[in-house]
Amino acid sequence: MSSYVAPLKDMMFVLTELAGLDKVAALPGYEEATTDVVEAILDESAKFTGGVLAPLNWSGDQEGAKWADKSVTMPAGFKEAYAQFVDNGWNALSGNPEHGGQGLPKVVSAAVQEMWKSANMSFSLCPLLTLGAIEALELAGTDAQKEMYLPNMVSGKWTGTMNITEPQAGSDLAAIRSRAVPQGDGTYRIFGNKIFITYGDHDMAENTIHLVLARTPGAPEGVKGISLFVVPKFLVNADGSLGPRNDVYCVSIEHKLGIHASPTCVMAHGDNGGSIGTMVGKENEGLKYMFVMMNAARFAVGLEGLAITERAYQHAVVYARDRVQGRAIEGSASGVAIIKHPDIRRMLMLMRSNVEAMRALAYTVAAAHDAAARHPDAAERAHNQAYVDLMIPVVKGWSTENGNELSYLGVQVHGGMGFVEETGAAQFMRDARITTIYEGTTGIQANDLMGRKIAREGGATVKAVIGMMQQTRSQLAQQPGPQFVAIGAALERGIAALSQAADYIVADYGKDVRAVAAGAVPFLRLMGVVSGGWMMARAALVAQSKIAGGDADPFFPAKIATAHFYADHVMAAASGLAAEVVQGGSSALALDEAMF
Amino acid sequence: MSSYVAPLKDMMFVLTELAGLDKVAALPGYEEATTDVVEAILDESAKFTGGVLAPLNWSGDQEGAKWADKSVTMPAGFKEAYAQFVDNGWNALSGNPEHGGQGLPKVVSAAVQEMWKSANMSFSLCPLLTLGAIEALELAGTDAQKEMYLPNMVSGKWTGTMNITEPQAGSDLAAIRSRAVPQGDGTYRIFGNKIFITYGDHDMAENTIHLVLARTPGAPEGVKGISLFVVPKFLVNADGSLGPRNDVYCVSIEHKLGIHASPTCVMAHGDNGGSIGTMVGKENEGLKYMFVMMNAARFAVGLEGLAITERAYQHAVVYARDRVQGRAIEGSASGVAIIKHPDIRRMLMLMRSNVEAMRALAYTVAAAHDAAARHPDAAERAHNQAYVDLMIPVVKGWSTENGNELSYLGVQVHGGMGFVEETGAAQFMRDARITTIYEGTTGIQANDLMGRKIAREGGATVKAVIGMMQQTRSQLAQQPGPQFVAIGAALERGIAALSQAADYIVADYGKDVRAVAAGAVPFLRLMGVVSGGWMMARAALVAQSKIAGGDADPFFPAKIATAHFYADHVMAAASGLAAEVVQGGSSALALDEAMF
Repeated sequence: MSSYVAPLKDMMFVLTELAGLDKVAALPGYEEATTDVVEAILDESAKFTGGVLAPLNWSGDQEGAKWADKSVTMPAGFKEAYAQFVDNGWNALSGNPEHGGQGLPKVVSAAVQEMWKSANMSFSLCPLLTLGAIEALELAGTDAQKEMYLPNMVSGKWTGTMNITEPQAGSDLAAIRSRAVPQGDGTYRIFGNKIFITYGDHDMAENTIHLVLARTPGAPEGVKGISLFVVPKFLVNADGSLGPRNDVYCVSIEHKLGIHASPTCVMAHGDNGGSIGTMVGKENEGLKYMFVMMNAARFAVGLEGLAITERAYQHAVVYARDRVQGRAIEGSASGVAIIKHPDIRRMLMLMRSNVEAMRALAYTVAAAHDAAARHPDAAERAHNQAYVDLMIPVVKGWSTENGNELSYLGVQVHGGMGFVEETGAAQFMRDARITTIYEGTTGIQANDLMGRKIAREGGATVKAVIGMMQQTRSQLAQQPGPQFVAIGAALERGIAALSQAADYIVADYGKDVRAVAAGAVPFLRLMGVVSGGWMMARAALVAQSKIAGGDADPFFPAKIATAHFYADHVMAAASGLAAEVVQGGSSALALDEAMF
Repeated sequence: MSSYVAPLKDMMFVLTELAGLDKVAALPGYEEATTDVVEAILDESAKFTGGVLAPLNWSGDQEGAKWADKSVTMPAGFKEAYAQFVDNGWNALSGNPEHGGQGLPKVVSAAVQEMWKSANMSFSLCPLLTLGAIEALELAGTDAQKEMYLPNMVSGKWTGTMNITEPQAGSDLAAIRSRAVPQGDGTYRIFGNKIFITYGDHDMAENTIHLVLARTPGAPEGVKGISLFVVPKFLVNADGSLGPRNDVYCVSIEHKLGIHASPTCVMAHGDNGGSIGTMVGKENEGLKYMFVMMNAARFAVGLEGLAITERAYQHAVVYARDRVQGRAIEGSASGVAIIKHPDIRRMLMLMRSNVEAMRALAYTVAAAHDAAARHPDAAERAHNQAYVDLMIPVVKGWSTENGNELSYLGVQVHGGMGFVEETGAAQFMRDARITTIYEGTTGIQANDLMGRKIAREGGATVKAVIGMMQQTRSQLAQQPGPQFVAIGAALERGIAALSQAADYIVADYGKDVRAVAAGAVPFLRLMGVVSGGWMMARAALVAQSKIAGGDADPFFPAKIATAHFYADHVMAAASGLAAEVVQGGSSALALDEAMF
């Protein structure tokens, strides 16, 4: 089975040259995140993920998480790997130092988390959920709740979950029916079944802390009557030791297309008198906290799209170098490695160039998140927050759709062997498939992008971003050679397409929201494609300045070649996507529903 | 699990209005294929496939074919279904009447086979392979071979296989190493291992007839030294009864991403002295026969792309009507069925419009095949054959890539439930995954299209097809209303994109074949998209003439609406694809191989 080698060089390039790590390290509280320290952290992370997590990816898929007697047993090796993960401090990397965290900025943890996800996406979902639960408690928990839960959650000794979805309440949380009954002592008893609960139960940690959405008696209907509760698997005694088993059990796990090692649980609260929990934050405001967490989770799932493509790319390159099949199309004395075939090369370039574009976009968004949180200047905070808000659905939706398309190409590079499970290429495609669905489908991301992030503010932020793209375009025009001509022309066409579509949304959203919404996903894709092209253009400019400065590292001409490919092959789709958005609304909705 | 309802109305529309069933029925030997007879056949086929094959699709996937003791056991129900399939005469539908076949034209069997594939793709692969083996024997077998094998193969009592691939010889058959040693009595003993042998062993029929590629002693290296042999599982006595077990065994089956009920076998010839067979056709000309069969098989795999999309579409529509989730985006009093959401509608329309376009293209190619085989006028035969040759890689490559993308969307429509295997949506996506690989990957189809089918003849046939598209464009210009304006404009842009790309191929193929080949797959996709748009435009014209003639069937406005959607959303990609072809060659190949 394939190994995973963290792409340290590109990660450091993006962090230092595109995402502005130096500026992040200048923010209060992030002073430790110097280039040297970050490089050392990534280096260690590369060793851990390549050496410990990656070798369990395939075996974990084949063995899968197992359920029996209301408990989940993880595949061989996971428990030990998790212990090592916690002992090495990886879970605490971005945690609040008040609770034992290392307090590193998001831009650094993004790179580290990309590695977890590339190495073993199923494993990575456990800390993903723990970090989300920590965020909820940090945001809205009482001091007592924080003291009781956070130290062990930040370290990873205890893990966390989100108990959100119910059978009738998937994308639509207004339909949640679980009940929370106050006991008069500050605690509540929770009743209800939750589905699709990632790591709802497992044997890697001694306690699991569930964050649960439920309704108190007499709460308003719909989204305004949902409260958030913290419900531990084992109740916690005043001295911090574990108390009795709480009445929340995993009553089955799903048989899924992918992420077989990540248990997706049906959780039953209250089959024996109610699971005991305490309220987090204010009554009926649970959804507000959930949305804050959700932004972090959406970003993290976007990283999954990037990460799985990186792994699928590495896997495909190894095969393409190794597999000898067919003569060269221009003629050759004997068979050649398939990496010589132009169409294989095109597929590998699609994977590579999109990975680099996705990484650049994701890390710059993470850096903006850090500035939005910590910059001393309120205007800078606001401007960065607007960029983050605009781009979160793009990072999530575009990167995950890409992850699916590109892991599909990874299988294609393998030919018939790609369809045989033992090869491992198919696992990436299967694992990727959930990423465009959970934490909000691509359609939901796209509606959020169009409605809340663009139409509501009259397109102010997207126009500011387009302005930044135009600056990059001007810089490209000053560079020599046909590669920069092509990159510049593609960016210009991309900007024109994006502007046209954004103007249409701003103008028509209030007039015919259904027609505009029919173009939401093509628009999200357009935003992703053009933002990615902008990032690749920025990367090419940096590379050119390094070359001009005498740097002979082959990384730099490779970066320009990759940006050129992206301009020719990926950006080529931009005008067609804009056309779908602008003209396609009515025809998407015209067919009589009865005729389907 | 979902049922399958054959889309009889669209099938008959395409057969009679677009593919010219009346003209096929005017060909010598096809007189029986009148509209009434064909309708009756499709009706019966709909009952059989919906009632017998479709219910085994999911159970077959879950149970899978099982291997033990060098034998394969099929999932429950398959043996009985196959017996019924043979008894009802389905296997013999297109067979030569001399050997017991019903001799129906390919355009009719295409529709019937689409149903097999929609209902149960794994099952359908058994007759697919049998029909291929029949074709090889019809083409090149001796009278004795035909007499010995064909009657039982045409009926389906015996099944057939193709023993082609070896570990080092996948796409590249020049690398085949299996040996055939003449015994001096007209028979050969075959030695060698073959992999990826579909239905290489199973328990549905009493005998399996393998068509095997191997080299005779002293045969030339490469593709010019490969001969074809017929090797039965059980030798056949002179009286037609079964003789001893031959030395060809299934020594394992693959653990695959999809088509779990279709056994993919490793076949060992000659572990105990050699499997006994006779040569089919001339020595060293095996590949020639194989290529004739391959065209039929490629067409059939193209139908799989269409068929699996149809099934995934039906499955998604049922879910989208049933699943209530979220309010309408324009506001609604309560939750609505998700089919009301614009993005769900867009996804369903993508599936629907592509299905209709793929069906129209495939059936017209099948009708051209019938004319190429039977037309009394040699010029008509030649012109139809040229169309078939051009379009086979398009039907194969475009329809199967579509089948993957669109069954992916089928999962997306299901949201989280799509990722849960029990829902059944994921199976279509898994099953579809092999279709872009076997019988020649999309890259191989695309190279064939560019090289042998376009560049070699200076683009003559593709230009003739573009001419036909332009006639359709002229007819569109005479129709009233904005739908036809949009359909016409999209076809015009599509024609322009296709012409530009085809001219580039003709001009540059001889100059820089590697750069041109880097655009082969985008070009194939462009051909598919625009050919599909042409077919949808033709369909819309027919529908409009029916409406103008007073026909109030809602099928006709629905067809126009679907063609309009295709024009707006699918044809929008054409110019970007052409740009990839024309400008993208050098950037696809520029990155230093060592840098991957």
